[in-house]
Amino acid sequence: MTEKKKAVVLLSGGIDSSTALAIARKEGFEPYVMSFNYGQRHVREIESARKIAESMHVSRMIVLDLDLRKIGGSALTDEFMVPKNRPEQEIAQGIPVTYVPARNTIFLSYALGWAEVLGSHDIFIGVNALDYSGYPDCRPEFIQAFQNVANLATKDGVEGRYFTIHTPLIHMTKAEIIKTGKALGVDFSLTHSCYDPSPDGRACGSCDSCLIRRKGFREAGIPDPAHYAV
Amino acid sequence: MTEKKKAVVLLSGGIDSSTALAIARKEGFEPYVMSFNYGQRHVREIESARKIAESMHVSRMIVLDLDLRKIGGSALTDEFMVPKNRPEQEIAQGIPVTYVPARNTIFLSYALGWAEVLGSHDIFIGVNALDYSGYPDCRPEFIQAFQNVANLATKDGVEGRYFTIHTPLIHMTKAEIIKTGKALGVDFSLTHSCYDPSPDGRACGSCDSCLIRRKGFREAGIPDPAHYAV
Repeated sequence: MTEKKKAVVLLSGGIDSSTALAIARKEGFEPYVMSFNYGQRHVREIESARKIAESMHVSRMIVLDLDLRKIGGSALTDEFMVPKNRPEQEIAQGIPVTYVPARNTIFLSYALGWAEVLGSHDIFIGVNALDYSGYPDCRPEFIQAFQNVANLATKDGVEGRYFTIHTPLIHMTKAEIIKTGKALGVDFSLTHSCYDPSPDGRACGSCDSCLIRRKGFREAGIPDPAHYAV
Repeated sequence: MTEKKKAVVLLSGGIDSSTALAIARKEGFEPYVMSFNYGQRHVREIESARKIAESMHVSRMIVLDLDLRKIGGSALTDEFMVPKNRPEQEIAQGIPVTYVPARNTIFLSYALGWAEVLGSHDIFIGVNALDYSGYPDCRPEFIQAFQNVANLATKDGVEGRYFTIHTPLIHMTKAEIIKTGKALGVDFSLTHSCYDPSPDGRACGSCDSCLIRRKGFREAGIPDPAHYAV
């Protein structure tokens, strides 16, 4: 039996990264899961990530503590308001206050470091350019540029063992992601999407992330197993 | 009086980054200093960084804790041996065990995040391609690729406010760096270079970093104020 190729999979605990993890497995990779505690309001998503990793029999997961609050500048890490009930057109336009400066660049940098140590050359990230809610670091041109950095920054890259950043969801709609995840057996009841959950863990139902999730399930024709406060 | 432009300066506490900080100031920037505690053996360098920042009247410095030990893979963070007394040709060739996977990519990612929050578009890093001791993430092509990432990853980049990664030392020899720093008033007695200092803080004198430092001072014709164990 040949050994499976290792892949580092970034897992937030939401629908997208959980589906990306399922795809990495289906493509024959042995997933090494990396999650981040970055002072986000919705730290509950790390618990979701653990449960999802467990449900998919991941052999190794590390959770890194990042002190992004020292840097600040985002509604996800600071004490300002998460916007609610924004109309769909508004969500689709511009960059929201929940944008965290350089977040995916930082996440991918750590994934790159770990991949090189593990002898892996494949990194999976569940970014999505369609329903991407306005984050610049979810676009294909960003991913391409980061892959270029990966191959110039590392011993492996210099020596011709190149890295691939896999973005299997990048051109899917949320509904397509949900259908794909469902078909691969992702248990969406374990996922967490809300930016601003209530203390008992229920999703607010009205932040951008909840609105995008609800619309996705509706369009996929699949019941959303999340518990909403409203 | 017009406000000075802010620059984020990565400061390790060694000769190169201290000189880069002095250059940023000379070029008229208001430096915002960022240092990292990444589980390095030579954590003493953070104390050096603080003293240097103080001596150059830096208005703001943040020290971020990074858990690179969870990733491992380097003699600088793990429990394996720092090589000693390597011949000069050997140091100049290949990538040493003190290489930390993706280190500069991670450092620059944080600098980028902080710069965007501060409204700064200038990042200084004291990398050096000549006496670079074999690290791939000190080369001009890496820096160029990261600058490209910076402009694709961020709100500012998307909106046409571009970032510049300044590498004023990239083509200098160590002797040139030392002469430049000296001319700009850097107090090299505050700097720390050794990868493997003794418990009382003296430099080992024989790791790659000490050997490169000693040669640099010798060639610059300037006495090295470091305290060496041997």
